[in-house]
Amino acid sequence: MLKKLLLFSFLGLVVLAVGILIGHFGIEKGVSAPGWLQELSHDVDEGLIKRFIDEVDTKQLEENLKALTMVPHMATTAGDEATVEYMLKRWQDKDSGLDAAWREDYRVYLSFPNKDRPNKVTVVNSTDGVLHLLQEKEMAYTPDQLDPEVVQPYAAYGPAGHARGKLVYANQGKVSDYEHLNNTMDLNGTIAIVRYGGAGRGAKAINAAPFGIVGVLVYTDPYDINDGLMSDKNETYPHSWYLPPSGVERGSFTSDFGDPLTPYLAAKNGTYRIPEEDINGAPPIPIQPIGFEDAKILICNLSGSVAPDSWQGSFPCKYKYGGPGFDDTYFKDSEVQLEVYNYGELRDSANVMGVIWGSVEPDRYVMYGNHRDSWVHGAIDPSSGTAVMLEITRILGQMVKSGKWRPRRTIIFGSWGAEEFGLIGSAEYTEEYISKLSQRTVAYINVDISVFANATLRASASPIAQSVIFTASKQVTSAGSSSVSVYDNWIRYFNKTSPTYGVIPNVGYLTGAGSDYASFIHYLGISSMDISYTYDRSKTKARIYPAYHTAYDTFDYASKFIDPGFTSHQAVARTAGNVLLRLADSLLLPFNCSDYAESLEEYLQATVDNFQDKMNASGISLEPLKEAVKFFRNAATILDRAIHNSDLVNETPLKTRKINDQLMLLDRAFLDPLAFPNKYGFRHVIWASRSSRVSTFPGLADAFEKAQASGLKEDWAQAHKHLSIITQAISGAAHTLSEAHSEM
Amino acid sequence: MLKKLLLFSFLGLVVLAVGILIGHFGIEKGVSAPGWLQELSHDVDEGLIKRFIDEVDTKQLEENLKALTMVPHMATTAGDEATVEYMLKRWQDKDSGLDAAWREDYRVYLSFPNKDRPNKVTVVNSTDGVLHLLQEKEMAYTPDQLDPEVVQPYAAYGPAGHARGKLVYANQGKVSDYEHLNNTMDLNGTIAIVRYGGAGRGAKAINAAPFGIVGVLVYTDPYDINDGLMSDKNETYPHSWYLPPSGVERGSFTSDFGDPLTPYLAAKNGTYRIPEEDINGAPPIPIQPIGFEDAKILICNLSGSVAPDSWQGSFPCKYKYGGPGFDDTYFKDSEVQLEVYNYGELRDSANVMGVIWGSVEPDRYVMYGNHRDSWVHGAIDPSSGTAVMLEITRILGQMVKSGKWRPRRTIIFGSWGAEEFGLIGSAEYTEEYISKLSQRTVAYINVDISVFANATLRASASPIAQSVIFTASKQVTSAGSSSVSVYDNWIRYFNKTSPTYGVIPNVGYLTGAGSDYASFIHYLGISSMDISYTYDRSKTKARIYPAYHTAYDTFDYASKFIDPGFTSHQAVARTAGNVLLRLADSLLLPFNCSDYAESLEEYLQATVDNFQDKMNASGISLEPLKEAVKFFRNAATILDRAIHNSDLVNETPLKTRKINDQLMLLDRAFLDPLAFPNKYGFRHVIWASRSSRVSTFPGLADAFEKAQASGLKEDWAQAHKHLSIITQAISGAAHTLSEAHSEM
Repeated sequence: MLKKLLLFSFLGLVVLAVGILIGHFGIEKGVSAPGWLQELSHDVDEGLIKRFIDEVDTKQLEENLKALTMVPHMATTAGDEATVEYMLKRWQDKDSGLDAAWREDYRVYLSFPNKDRPNKVTVVNSTDGVLHLLQEKEMAYTPDQLDPEVVQPYAAYGPAGHARGKLVYANQGKVSDYEHLNNTMDLNGTIAIVRYGGAGRGAKAINAAPFGIVGVLVYTDPYDINDGLMSDKNETYPHSWYLPPSGVERGSFTSDFGDPLTPYLAAKNGTYRIPEEDINGAPPIPIQPIGFEDAKILICNLSGSVAPDSWQGSFPCKYKYGGPGFDDTYFKDSEVQLEVYNYGELRDSANVMGVIWGSVEPDRYVMYGNHRDSWVHGAIDPSSGTAVMLEITRILGQMVKSGKWRPRRTIIFGSWGAEEFGLIGSAEYTEEYISKLSQRTVAYINVDISVFANATLRASASPIAQSVIFTASKQVTSAGSSSVSVYDNWIRYFNKTSPTYGVIPNVGYLTGAGSDYASFIHYLGISSMDISYTYDRSKTKARIYPAYHTAYDTFDYASKFIDPGFTSHQAVARTAGNVLLRLADSLLLPFNCSDYAESLEEYLQATVDNFQDKMNASGISLEPLKEAVKFFRNAATILDRAIHNSDLVNETPLKTRKINDQLMLLDRAFLDPLAFPNKYGFRHVIWASRSSRVSTFPGLADAFEKAQASGLKEDWAQAHKHLSIITQAISGAAHTLSEAHSEM
Repeated sequence: MLKKLLLFSFLGLVVLAVGILIGHFGIEKGVSAPGWLQELSHDVDEGLIKRFIDEVDTKQLEENLKALTMVPHMATTAGDEATVEYMLKRWQDKDSGLDAAWREDYRVYLSFPNKDRPNKVTVVNSTDGVLHLLQEKEMAYTPDQLDPEVVQPYAAYGPAGHARGKLVYANQGKVSDYEHLNNTMDLNGTIAIVRYGGAGRGAKAINAAPFGIVGVLVYTDPYDINDGLMSDKNETYPHSWYLPPSGVERGSFTSDFGDPLTPYLAAKNGTYRIPEEDINGAPPIPIQPIGFEDAKILICNLSGSVAPDSWQGSFPCKYKYGGPGFDDTYFKDSEVQLEVYNYGELRDSANVMGVIWGSVEPDRYVMYGNHRDSWVHGAIDPSSGTAVMLEITRILGQMVKSGKWRPRRTIIFGSWGAEEFGLIGSAEYTEEYISKLSQRTVAYINVDISVFANATLRASASPIAQSVIFTASKQVTSAGSSSVSVYDNWIRYFNKTSPTYGVIPNVGYLTGAGSDYASFIHYLGISSMDISYTYDRSKTKARIYPAYHTAYDTFDYASKFIDPGFTSHQAVARTAGNVLLRLADSLLLPFNCSDYAESLEEYLQATVDNFQDKMNASGISLEPLKEAVKFFRNAATILDRAIHNSDLVNETPLKTRKINDQLMLLDRAFLDPLAFPNKYGFRHVIWASRSSRVSTFPGLADAFEKAQASGLKEDWAQAHKHLSIITQAISGAAHTLSEAHSEM
């Protein structure tokens, strides 16, 4: 019986086993899924973002800044080369480096003062006696500033030359300033002294030349930078963040960006170069920046009528126009003599590039960059941003090297060269890789000066990126707080009322070319962001942080007066890094096209409010523009609804890719390479630079103002043309969002 | 025992069933695949292609042509509107139509003769007596040609105006022809008669004006079009395909394409329009085309020296220059008087669009198009192409409507309006949808005149498309043969030796703007093809089929003399349709980037052979260009190898998409919107139009020739600039193929 039982049990087991085998192998379950399937629909990992935020370390940020600011590192100098090596060392580190890092050199045209013959400004009397020699260097308060590599203050790309003449004070060197002066005196043969602000650096000389002015001095008035303070005994650095009396803002004095000799072409060895005399937007007459201590001596000795209130600054004297020339006291009958020995030279400037390859979509790039070169030690500009970038790459690099993480999309970091001379490294890079970058780049995040001051976040961005910046900033605590988020702090300083959301932080528009985002947004139409921490405007009206572009922008300055404790650096690193991770890892790109519609509606409203009546009177209707904006809004709404109704995790990955492409390429649809033939690199018809004060479509605004001023038929025709250009761009962009068959 | 046996058997079955259930549901087989997975990797179905080829029907093609050529259908006339309705009816048919079809109108500037005051050319004597009135209409041989809608021969966009003067014969109206004449006489106040060929239509007048010539007559010499034959008694139509003596080629006389008043902007109602006097490339003086019967009377009565041999045509007289004016026989002391009453007008011109939505990649477009408007009945130009397009859509439409097939990618068909006036419909379409089309379009196939003659296939294309045209043409039998393939027949007529493949059919380059592909390849950089059947050049040297743009281009003419039996139409439909299906359905796009490398190498060789010595002598090195071409070749080889080593059916669909995007966007990478500022719509730096006879990079070739002629430093600088432009474009394109990290 037992035997029988065992036999039957055995037979039963055999039958069962046969059944299991049949069931498992004999019956089709449908095709089994390939291994890569799940990864395709993987979304951003909130736990990873939290870990990233936790790891951003103030001490590391401080160490980064210290390392980056050891020596002056003006573009292409030995100091710059040292930072190249440092970046490569960090990004090639086996434990915390990136997948790969390398340098890419461009041969670019830079402008320098002559070390052997420093630029010189003097006050000379009629017998050539020197009554006053202006300071050639800034006074040293710390050993840093004694470094022989501290470059003499100068106006890069200002021409070499000598000029001598009676001095006049021309306020900010705007066209209107010179016109005003010209109404009261003959400016021929004069030297103008002007203060920074109101007009671009080079413009101060370009505007001056047509009036016969032969040379320009430019200084920073304590009114504009120091909240009126002037004494280095107890008021200015090293006692505070304010600019000492001998401090001088250096800068590039051209108006275009990119290598000045190779517009639209990457500056390689064999590349065609325009003649130097054809450089666009460079000063036509000698110009030299000086400190306010010297400026005070010059301005307070001028003769002539008292200048208007809006021209007055903080010096303890009435600012006069100049007779032209000085009054009869100290500098009686004297002239100002300007000797400039600047020279131009081709130099090899390096970008340092680093990459983390994407796992699922390696051909989609999220880019993050900052320039590396400074004027002197550049602690704030740009090293505060590079310190942040290096802290982000340290944390991401460790995650990659330890095998814990790899982004969905490829992340590319850029440490740009020669930005101070005109965004050169980033511009050449975008020129060389224009096709690949245009086809593949999801977004560019720029963090240049990461901390202007430690009060609040500030962000400028394409409207499509507003939402991801908000999401990220809500997850980070603000500098120096453990409870208030960056977002909640931000909204207290900058806010606006959105028709969709109510009160939100005011994200600025990228309408200028203030940093390396310019080539990305304006030339390539890549959705860009510029992120930093900045001022409490109720506490200072400084035009910018006072040591900007001076020898005082050092580690000591930054760590004592700008961000003690590095908590603002930390808040920026956490926020920008969070944005970066979301862009790199989200299944659906965290972009919102309806936010773009809101910005277009805002611009449209400004156009209607400011231009409509006069456009109509000239026979030009705004209806096509209104229809285009409406069409864009509808298309955005429909796409948003389609996204909302999709189950992207379970639908075909090509559907997600399609929507992501629509979002990625939206800013590209606003490019028109022929819209602004005279403005290098500006192709984005919504965010291009603008002269008009009306915050709206730049081409239309500027053309409208010209037409209104001249009343000429051909100028109204240009306004109409620009209206058609933006109308077509907006409806063309809407087509890319729309699936309606009659708008293929 | 039986009971027990039954019991045990039952238990056994239960155990087996349990086992099966456990085996099937209890043991994880891995995630089961979603339903869409297999579709993602579906490749082109060769059976389907065979069925398509089989279904292309000569009878249907003939019916299509008959329907399309019932009445004259010049753009925007009632006849054109009838073809719009016909296209819509066909494409909206419930059994053989497309997913959707619709019309899109643009408001464009066209030019017409005045019906009430026909243009008039007369020979008048000194007392204003009319000695000869040139024929205002072509002679009617069939009832077709009596249709009141047959437009009088005229030069579209030629200005209205009267001109009177002594006649001169100026060969083809090239600059060199007028210069030659000008060396022997004073051309001021003369009227020139020129023959078609050698220079663009409008150029014949543009070239004449600077010499003081006041009017131009243009005719087709029997030497150029009729292999010398002239008599309509037995030689020309209706006895053969040759042009009757009164036949006149009409045409557009502007040099740019697209609506002339709205360059770069889609011509909508509110769009900015340039003043009519600013239209680029229109004739500055009255010009009128005439038949050779009249031309013979004029030319054979000229006085003066005998013109060079190369100026002689087929008339039975010595062609003389004209004294200026006539000899002392028939037209003694007479002048030619030209009265032109052409006028311009804004008209609504329609494109008819149709779509078959893609199943897997709806956001990838394969486009196929042809214009719909003709000058008169337009049987060959363009209806032979439209007949082919309608036969393709009939077959594909039936497959879609019956649920048997849906393409992987979206297919868009375009029936363009107002092509004859300057590719207007297609140009406006690409201007309006520039962003969406640039982002999504895989290729554009153009079949305009599908059959010039019935000897052989002819194709011009981006090199990337060569391979798919070869593949398709190998699967189709040539016209009138049941054994020789289109490919094998083709290679007998046009061939070249490829370094890679040996002897292959010679696919031409799309360097001009001869049909609607121009906007796609030159303005948008979309890989394009132009496909037709054409002549046996050993049998005729006709410049083009003789009835081109005349009233004789009718169904009768086409079906009797161009393609009796419609087998050439059939071969083109099969070949072009096969190409279309492969582009729409292939998993991996049937594009070959290494074929592009071969074309670039060929162009490079021509540059080296023709320009290198003189470039070097001017201090310009070709090395960067050589390196760029080498880099392109390497990148193409590596991509090809990567494709070869991939298992795209089983790998992630995003990998296929990535490679397809690289292939799709390759032509886009050669666009430079600033390369040719004076040539509307030409942005593709490899295929743009070219004046130089050297078949190489057009900007470089033209700049080189200018520099060589002038010897000016600034002209050599321009040659260098164009060298840098193509170098950057080629290496930029190579970057899009390359994954090397140092060339991100």
